[in-house]
Order: sequence, then structure tokens, then C-alpha cells
Amino acid sequence: MELIRVPACTGVAVEVDMGHTISIIDPDGGQVGDFFAFNREDLSEYLSASHTRAFNSKVFPAVGDAFMSSLRRPMLRVMADTSPGYHDMLIAACDPARYAQFGVEGWHASCAENLATALAGRGITLGFTPQPFNVFMRTPANPDGSISWLLAQSRPGDRFQMRAEMDLIVVLSACPSELSGINAGGLTDLELQIDRN
Amino acid sequence: MELIRVPACTGVAVEVDMGHTISIIDPDGGQVGDFFAFNREDLSEYLSASHTRAFNSKVFPAVGDAFMSSLRRPMLRVMADTSPGYHDMLIAACDPARYAQFGVEGWHASCAENLATALAGRGITLGFTPQPFNVFMRTPANPDGSISWLLAQSRPGDRFQMRAEMDLIVVLSACPSELSGINAGGLTDLELQIDRN
Repeated sequence: MELIRVPACTGVAVEVDMGHTISIIDPDGGQVGDFFAFNREDLSEYLSASHTRAFNSKVFPAVGDAFMSSLRRPMLRVMADTSPGYHDMLIAACDPARYAQFGVEGWHASCAENLATALAGRGITLGFTPQPFNVFMRTPANPDGSISWLLAQSRPGDRFQMRAEMDLIVVLSACPSELSGINAGGLTDLELQIDRN
Repeated sequence: MELIRVPACTGVAVEVDMGHTISIIDPDGGQVGDFFAFNREDLSEYLSASHTRAFNSKVFPAVGDAFMSSLRRPMLRVMADTSPGYHDMLIAACDPARYAQFGVEGWHASCAENLATALAGRGITLGFTPQPFNVFMRTPANPDGSISWLLAQSRPGDRFQMRAEMDLIVVLSACPSELSGINAGGLTDLELQIDRN
């Protein structure tokens, strides 16, 4: 068992083998994480939101559902979720253009940059940013088709657990947005727990 | 004014300048089209479903809304829609893996391959398949979060009109899926009408 801290506003890349379980833990509550996954043998195969929605015929995944790859293969399966159950799979990762539109001048941390930095630390240049799975992010689709931006309701210690269905590199970014109304109670750390047995 | 036929089960790429209007027409009704758009000056900037949803705070775009790029810039704006208004922006393009999962043996036309073939005709190799905007595709998100796969309700001559907000290459694929319950009344042609003034 390995517990990896993801400091607030940063991202961490971890290798996970098929059969291992990955838990995303929100130690302080109210913190959104942007989660990305890649086939370790072929990084062009990535966790794809649009293929996942097509496979599950669901907007958002829940316990028992699979996260599918861009080649329509199962990458991860949701095993448990102690949170209130809000997770986003509609919204792009925040990026420099997003903060510029918010009026931020100069640099601001972003989940897209955190992904690129975490992968660069392993010598990987991706060239694009897949749509993430946004754990604990409360942006539900309303019956009229609108999307609400609401504060995360994850409680201290809530965890979202998945089993890897192939050998993966996963990246978790502790979302650094204080401007979009999704992170509650400040910007805080997340944790990744890997159970390697 | 230019009228371009997109034969059933194939894709066509067209250059469109900023300010021109593009209409997607369903001559026979009941036919889904997968629509892709790229910045002509930098093909790595593409119409992005997840950035479009974030910008509009809506699952599906409608008249007046913009389609946003992967760099959060407006690419197209919806000007008019004579159809019943069902269009998909949740589901990945069909691809060889999709038809293999349906049990198809051997080759089957797909929107992902139609995109690649249409771009290859212009000497472009993309390396990935963006999530398309699926015009006339009736896969609504239900209040419980499930996605229904329903037959297209577009009527003969229905059109979906957009204005280009930058110089683009767009690709339209007449979806060749007879297996997913979305194309009504057989697989038929689509048309692209470009108004260059």
C-alpha cells in the first residue's frame, strides 16, 4: 500500500499495474481533482470521456461502471465511492486560456499544465489534453440541459476507488481554480492510495 | 453559394472562411452527421465538446451558442436550426472498435475513418479523433443521467446553420451506423451548403 500526497494546485503521475486499486482521497473535503489515465504501453490510448459515456450510456460514471479508453477498452472500473456521488465528466480541464478569460493577469496554475508537468517529469510530451474525469466536482446536468457550477460536497476523508484494468500511468491534479465556484473551503491537497496486491 | 453532397457512409472536408455560413442539410431525413472543425492555420486547434460545454454551461448547443475550440476560442456560432432540435455532443465518433463490439466481422465504414480519409485527401494526418458534434443525433441525457439512443427525427430538408468565426477546415461524415439505433430510414446522403459572402 502506497499513499501519495498531491499538494494543493499541483499534479502527480503514478504508474499502476492491471489489478491494482487506486483510491483518490480528499483529506480536507471540498477539493476537486482532475484525473487522467493512459495505457503505459501506448500513451496515445487515453481515458476518453466520450467513449466512456457511449459504453455506459450514462453521462457520469458510478460504482460498477468502467472508464473506457479511446480504443474502447476498459481502463479502470469504479469499485467504491464514499462521497455524495457528484463527479464531473462534461467539463474540460482548466488551462491558461480559462484563467485569462477570468481576467487573471500573468501565470496561474491549471490542471492542463499540471498534467503536462507531471508527464514531463517522466520524459513524456503528450501534445494534447484529454478531457479529464473530475472527481468530487459538482457540475450536474440539469433536466433543461444546463450545467450548474456548484461547490464540491466531498467530506474530509471521502474516497473514490477504482481498479486498473490495464497497466497505466495515471495523473491526478488538485484543481487550482478558486474562480469557478467548484472548490469549497480553499484549495487543498488530495491523496492517491495505490494498493498493489 | 456552394452545395456539396456528402454521399451516404462517407465524409467530406471543406475549407470555410471566417464570416461564411455553413448549413448541414439532411435531404431525406433521419440521417445523423458527425461534424468536426479545425483551425486552418493550426490543425492542433479543434472544435472541442468539453470546452464548448464549459463555455455555454450547457450539455448541448442551440441557436445563438458558440462551438469553442480546444484553445477556448469561438470557432462557429449556431445561426438557425429547422430540425426538432436534437443534436448530440456526448458520444464519440463510431470507429472500427465500435463495429467489432457490435459483432461486425471485417471492415465497416465509420465516422472516425471518414474523418481520417477526408483529411488525408488534403495531405493531413491528425493522429487522433476529436469528439464530434453529432448533428440530428437523438441521444438525450435523461434526468437520471442515462443516455437514450433514439432514431433521428430530422425531416427531409431540415438544416442546421452555423457561421464560421475563424478560417476553418470542417469535415462532415454521413454516419454509416445501421446498428446503434440512431439513423432512421436507412443510411442516406447529407449536404453541406457554404454561403461565401
